[in-house]
Amino acid sequence: MSIPAPAIASFQPPRRTLMGPGPSDVPQRILDAMARPTIGHLDPAFTTMMEETKTLLRYAFQTENKLTFPVSGPGSVGMESCFVNLVEPGDKVIVCVNGVFGGRMVENVKRTGGVPVIVEDAWGAPVDPAKVEAAFAANPDAKIFAFVHAETSTGALSDAAALAAIARRHGALTIMDCVTSLGGVPVLIDEWGIDAAYSGSQKCLSCTPGISPVTFGERAIAKVKARKTPVQSWFMDLNLVLGYWSGEGKRTYHHTAPINPLYGLHEALVMLAEEGLENAWARHRSMHEKLRDGLEAMGIQFVVDEAARLPQLNSVYIPDGVDDAAARTRLINEFNLEIGAGLGVLAGKIWRIGLMGYSAKQENVDYCLKAVKAVMG
Amino acid sequence: MSIPAPAIASFQPPRRTLMGPGPSDVPQRILDAMARPTIGHLDPAFTTMMEETKTLLRYAFQTENKLTFPVSGPGSVGMESCFVNLVEPGDKVIVCVNGVFGGRMVENVKRTGGVPVIVEDAWGAPVDPAKVEAAFAANPDAKIFAFVHAETSTGALSDAAALAAIARRHGALTIMDCVTSLGGVPVLIDEWGIDAAYSGSQKCLSCTPGISPVTFGERAIAKVKARKTPVQSWFMDLNLVLGYWSGEGKRTYHHTAPINPLYGLHEALVMLAEEGLENAWARHRSMHEKLRDGLEAMGIQFVVDEAARLPQLNSVYIPDGVDDAAARTRLINEFNLEIGAGLGVLAGKIWRIGLMGYSAKQENVDYCLKAVKAVMG
Repeated sequence: MSIPAPAIASFQPPRRTLMGPGPSDVPQRILDAMARPTIGHLDPAFTTMMEETKTLLRYAFQTENKLTFPVSGPGSVGMESCFVNLVEPGDKVIVCVNGVFGGRMVENVKRTGGVPVIVEDAWGAPVDPAKVEAAFAANPDAKIFAFVHAETSTGALSDAAALAAIARRHGALTIMDCVTSLGGVPVLIDEWGIDAAYSGSQKCLSCTPGISPVTFGERAIAKVKARKTPVQSWFMDLNLVLGYWSGEGKRTYHHTAPINPLYGLHEALVMLAEEGLENAWARHRSMHEKLRDGLEAMGIQFVVDEAARLPQLNSVYIPDGVDDAAARTRLINEFNLEIGAGLGVLAGKIWRIGLMGYSAKQENVDYCLKAVKAVMG
Repeated sequence: MSIPAPAIASFQPPRRTLMGPGPSDVPQRILDAMARPTIGHLDPAFTTMMEETKTLLRYAFQTENKLTFPVSGPGSVGMESCFVNLVEPGDKVIVCVNGVFGGRMVENVKRTGGVPVIVEDAWGAPVDPAKVEAAFAANPDAKIFAFVHAETSTGALSDAAALAAIARRHGALTIMDCVTSLGGVPVLIDEWGIDAAYSGSQKCLSCTPGISPVTFGERAIAKVKARKTPVQSWFMDLNLVLGYWSGEGKRTYHHTAPINPLYGLHEALVMLAEEGLENAWARHRSMHEKLRDGLEAMGIQFVVDEAARLPQLNSVYIPDGVDDAAARTRLINEFNLEIGAGLGVLAGKIWRIGLMGYSAKQENVDYCLKAVKAVMG
């Protein structure tokens, strides 16, 4: 035994108020659910819970897609699951980039052997449907269209209905990132004609991070089944994952599902169904308005135009004379308050203040305004 | 709103005794840790916990490898992370197959564009070093060697030190699956000269499923850095993951880590360090002997020869005249006891009785013997 046992104590995390770009505050009810006794991933009781989770996710996504389930990994795995299954080597993919996560989509396309056609918009602006229309006109052979509904890096919301309609008209499948939108603003998979979408557990669902809800429509499944090349990832291959999650016939072992985190997601979705989607959307909207009024009263300006502004992710310019890192360190140390830094080209220029899920409440709005005011000195 | 809110209640799992191939029983102390308040993945307090977790994992793996960390996904993602990073298209990979998980390694090699050379042994037998030696003699250009230390599908333990030494002599890197061995029997990464290894959280560490501890040595990292082609997975690309987990310089955002499950893993590793590896190995050994004596007294026979038998996973032939599915259903319904079914060629022929982590205790041994006796009725 060359390496001795380290003397490390149990970890006692501080109690923070989470108003960054996720994770958001997790209600005690969800934490309690996660601490219930672990059972096996093939246990009949677990199977029942899996089916309930799929039903609850169909409600959250507003879809009748049978293939709606939680991927056993964070949102990035949900994203990659969409691309590795739907993109075949040589496929042309129109990808909209107006922030970090559109850029990540391009990376995914390249690594699956697809050919990305990039539609760029400014960071902070929504995706421009006219540019997408032009991209399809120039690339009539594009097979896939991908965009981020709610850019977590900027706080911009794009018009998913308009964008998906363009792709449908040109015979392309649409992949939508709704990591930050699900549960906070309308996400209407069937009404909009979205073929594949992925989300995250730790944003407006207020669950702990690590699970990615996904949904795939019939046209997407047909493309996966018609593939000439195997899906490059064994773990993410829908043909295999389906054997465990489909609920049709015998349930076959694929991988060991993250049991307790799935208890948490189930509870988060039960809470969403209890509140009702419309009420959840209205709550996010109303808390955003209160936060906006308070920030603007301090002279703080928003990055995103009002029409495309995400209520659950408030991107604001760091006030003149305020040191970014020093202010956020004070917020953490003196107020136990987490807000988000800027990413990429917006690093050091903006703050991202989340009002997601359980964090979207009056108490948090008031506390955040008080704390931000204090560190602005 | 076309899909109405479903009326689904909170999930209350039954309390089982978990003696299958994993998950194992999770101690309340670990469940409690998972229910602590969520903090951000870039929070300084979380960073401290990440560093502690890496230190604790180095102890569990008995390695000084700096690149030792928990992958944000189940063991299958840990496996795929090793293969997508280390195997380049065209690389010849010698893979030992003596059960389900060796077969899964072959799938991984194929999907990364590698060329698998398969060394087969019977299901239930350990990997035969002479066959590996012969495979290297016939394939001197093999760059990678991969084997499963403890085959979860059969209960066979292979001689990792001997196997890795052969690979090292032939200039190949060794990838080892120690999902079921870590914490239950000696796993000595540095002493054996293993270049890359992955494990799981839900076996002898007794944590909930969903996290995969991995470790990579300097030779493995050099191969990743010298790649001519990008890693095909964005999520698993070590070059990117390192920016978050390396702890060197500024910690950059890659994906949102599964915060609360990582609290659980940290606690599980603290408990392992408190007990001490040697004590944990001795406990698994001693509980296995008690279970073995009891099962043999009932006339039940083991699948694996004593010399290669895993104490933590007892594969036994289903007694004559006992209906597999009916017996396991009775164990679940009448005794709340989960044991494992056979997989692949052993389906319907064997049971797999786990004594992993917290499940490896006298109370469980006694309870299992009583229950199995009852259903053999």
